Amino acid sequence: MAATTSDTDVLLADLAGVVGADHITSGDAIGEDDTHDEALTATWVTPSAVVRPGTTAEVVEVLRRCDDARVPVTARGSGTGLSGAAIPVEGGVVVAFDRMRAILEIDTENHMAVVQPGITLAELDEALAPHGLVYPVFPGENSASLGGNVNTNAGGMRAVKYGVTRHHVLGLEAVLPSGEVIRTGGKVVKATSGYDLTQLIVGSEGTLALVTEVTLKLHPRMPHSATVLAPFATLDEVTRVVPEVVRSGVGPMILEYIDLMTMAAATAFVGLDLGIPQDIKDTALAYLVIVVEARTEERVEEDTALVAEMMGGAGALDVYVLPPSAGAGLIDAREKAFWVAKANGADDILDVVVPRASIPEYLSRVSEIASSSGSWIAGCGHAGDGNVHLSIFQADADVRRETLRQVFQAGMDVGGAISGEHGIGTEKQHLFLELEDPAKIALMRRIKAAFDPHGTLNPGTLLDVEPG
Amino acid sequence: MAATTSDTDVLLADLAGVVGADHITSGDAIGEDDTHDEALTATWVTPSAVVRPGTTAEVVEVLRRCDDARVPVTARGSGTGLSGAAIPVEGGVVVAFDRMRAILEIDTENHMAVVQPGITLAELDEALAPHGLVYPVFPGENSASLGGNVNTNAGGMRAVKYGVTRHHVLGLEAVLPSGEVIRTGGKVVKATSGYDLTQLIVGSEGTLALVTEVTLKLHPRMPHSATVLAPFATLDEVTRVVPEVVRSGVGPMILEYIDLMTMAAATAFVGLDLGIPQDIKDTALAYLVIVVEARTEERVEEDTALVAEMMGGAGALDVYVLPPSAGAGLIDAREKAFWVAKANGADDILDVVVPRASIPEYLSRVSEIASSSGSWIAGCGHAGDGNVHLSIFQADADVRRETLRQVFQAGMDVGGAISGEHGIGTEKQHLFLELEDPAKIALMRRIKAAFDPHGTLNPGTLLDVEPG
Repeated sequence: MAATTSDTDVLLADLAGVVGADHITSGDAIGEDDTHDEALTATWVTPSAVVRPGTTAEVVEVLRRCDDARVPVTARGSGTGLSGAAIPVEGGVVVAFDRMRAILEIDTENHMAVVQPGITLAELDEALAPHGLVYPVFPGENSASLGGNVNTNAGGMRAVKYGVTRHHVLGLEAVLPSGEVIRTGGKVVKATSGYDLTQLIVGSEGTLALVTEVTLKLHPRMPHSATVLAPFATLDEVTRVVPEVVRSGVGPMILEYIDLMTMAAATAFVGLDLGIPQDIKDTALAYLVIVVEARTEERVEEDTALVAEMMGGAGALDVYVLPPSAGAGLIDAREKAFWVAKANGADDILDVVVPRASIPEYLSRVSEIASSSGSWIAGCGHAGDGNVHLSIFQADADVRRETLRQVFQAGMDVGGAISGEHGIGTEKQHLFLELEDPAKIALMRRIKAAFDPHGTLNPGTLLDVEPG
Repeated sequence: MAATTSDTDVLLADLAGVVGADHITSGDAIGEDDTHDEALTATWVTPSAVVRPGTTAEVVEVLRRCDDARVPVTARGSGTGLSGAAIPVEGGVVVAFDRMRAILEIDTENHMAVVQPGITLAELDEALAPHGLVYPVFPGENSASLGGNVNTNAGGMRAVKYGVTRHHVLGLEAVLPSGEVIRTGGKVVKATSGYDLTQLIVGSEGTLALVTEVTLKLHPRMPHSATVLAPFATLDEVTRVVPEVVRSGVGPMILEYIDLMTMAAATAFVGLDLGIPQDIKDTALAYLVIVVEARTEERVEEDTALVAEMMGGAGALDVYVLPPSAGAGLIDAREKAFWVAKANGADDILDVVVPRASIPEYLSRVSEIASSSGSWIAGCGHAGDGNVHLSIFQADADVRRETLRQVFQAGMDVGGAISGEHGIGTEKQHLFLELEDPAKIALMRRIKAAFDPHGTLNPGTLLDVEPG
């Protein structure tokens, strides 16, 4: 099944011919960065080679040669993923997209952008701002690549208003393992002309095709916003007010809960003092953060007042409308929650998604699981989406695995899914395959075979397909 | 390949056993309604039998038996489709969902509804209104079934603000031809836990699975709205102002263009007098209709004023803010555009979708095609979505087919697709297969086989798959 050493040498020479000797590394020359993503639990793997194609035509040649040689291929963006989907396969080839990072077009008439997968979210945002447009998916890590976001269907704090990556990808250029290049969708906001291949590839974690171009839907950039912070005596109260905010029609851009420990750790991490009085800090067990935005300052003020009133009615200990710099600081601190967890030694981080209204019930179940397993679980999350980010502190790998199984199962029991936005990758694959309906897994594997009959693309991710 | 008569008799007896003798019709007992949908060009077909299951378990048994017997199955909702996807197959079985029309749940906390596929949009809207919630996909025909809407990925006038069916279907229960029942997605607004089977089934026109339950995302029902009507001297001016309205951040709920002939015919059809002065009527070649909605009356007034100002700046002959009854009447007239076209003897209706900003260029190309083929083509459409509804008047079938080919090709040339919301069905299938990339067609057929290895489901629709 695995290629022999001399086969590999021939392949690598071939690949060097395709991308140019400057754009392939192998053996000891492979940088440590290319051996892993940010998944806390993953074992880093050095592949046979890392190639950096510069054009779709080069991607075609690379993929076709690897497929012919039955050598696994792993796509890589910026390597900021949290599930291990960019971890190389031993003996395989990594196709890294850092050289394909152009913005091909900013279409101000259609409000769309056409980009290559290697571009980072930060670069895209900087280019869009002067046009008064925004790509509103902010998963919290601005060095992430757009291609990585497409493959994990990344979300983030603004999803409660704007939706996730899936809702903004209108079209793709993608290369199949056969070397065929398909163009799906396009600069149209809707279509019903055959199966939606775009949506099938989004979130497929590099297992179906290599994405070489993305057409994105943009939005007008709202000029005015405000941040409201409401401390509550219990987490339960925080999560219970969320459906009310959504129902009000205010349409918040951000609606996040942050538990006591996460708030303390995150604000300390970025050195932020929100000026909350000590007696409130002493009583608050959880916080709700609401950001509203609008076309005019007056509307922001109206919506802020309405939100503040709802918080008061729901039992908030107090309500703060933060000054702009403190508001931005708080969002920044919240975005760094992963780095805070990592810095504090979290053993794993999860992103279970459940029905929005089930968060209180779900978090209470998570508490019980934490107690009974002797683990420590802290969290924050996209309350408006039911997407819960949990930091798991449990050093014993066996106990941790069983804890995760219970935490995932509890989420699925209330109608949720294992991952809201990080993906399954290598790290949650085995629990996913254990807990998910076997009929669906079998169907997904047949779909995988329809794209990738030899199991060349990311074989150790998501569906544990044997290459060859 | 086709079952023999006695095989068919055995199957029908079996199916009668599954759904009960009262819920199966065959031979002359089959009503004319069950032999067609509303596609203007389709040949009506009487199937072997029409079954009306009452439960998912009955759907499982029906589908499994048909699949075993290699007898084609066509799903049927209300039969209001426009592409022939609900037209039966000769010798096949129609599974009609009128008995599975329950609202299983209206979840006011999560803003979701769980429904069976047979429910009509009118029934659903009536049930949601008292809760202050709305399922905002209004494709213009309120007797349409939700299941039919899911299978065609129906759109409609409000898509410019809310998106189409695809954007509101969060989960499905669906039966595979093997009889396996899968549940996809759920009451979560996002997830990235394996391939998105929900999005793959939406818009698949009954070729992948039979949908037996749908979880829908709902929105708060906005209490205030206003309708602005702006006549223009040219169609070109109308379509050029559209991107500006979208960019403004007003977020219109409806943004429609209506050409002169369609406006005259539609208002006459419903007996509506908008009170437009005769000199304006004499000069206007096209109209833009904009509906804005908001949480408060004041915001509607502000947004209306802003829209009116934009229309003036874009060269509108005048701007009318319609009184509520006239506004509702105009939307009603616009929704009836299909019936108007049918009553006026249109030979076909199309719904090509193109990039929003390409509408002027595209319509000018359509004009040329109409002239050179001696056809008459009138239209209106979802200008905010680039979705153009064209009524084709061309009695000669061969000339019409060539005209359609050119109209579709012109849409694809500017980056569009053959259908924005009606689907491909039986009627546009051959041009779809001719004009679409063969690599994508082959991939779609492999995906079809992953769900439906024997080609049992709607074999004559979309991909022209041979059953057996």
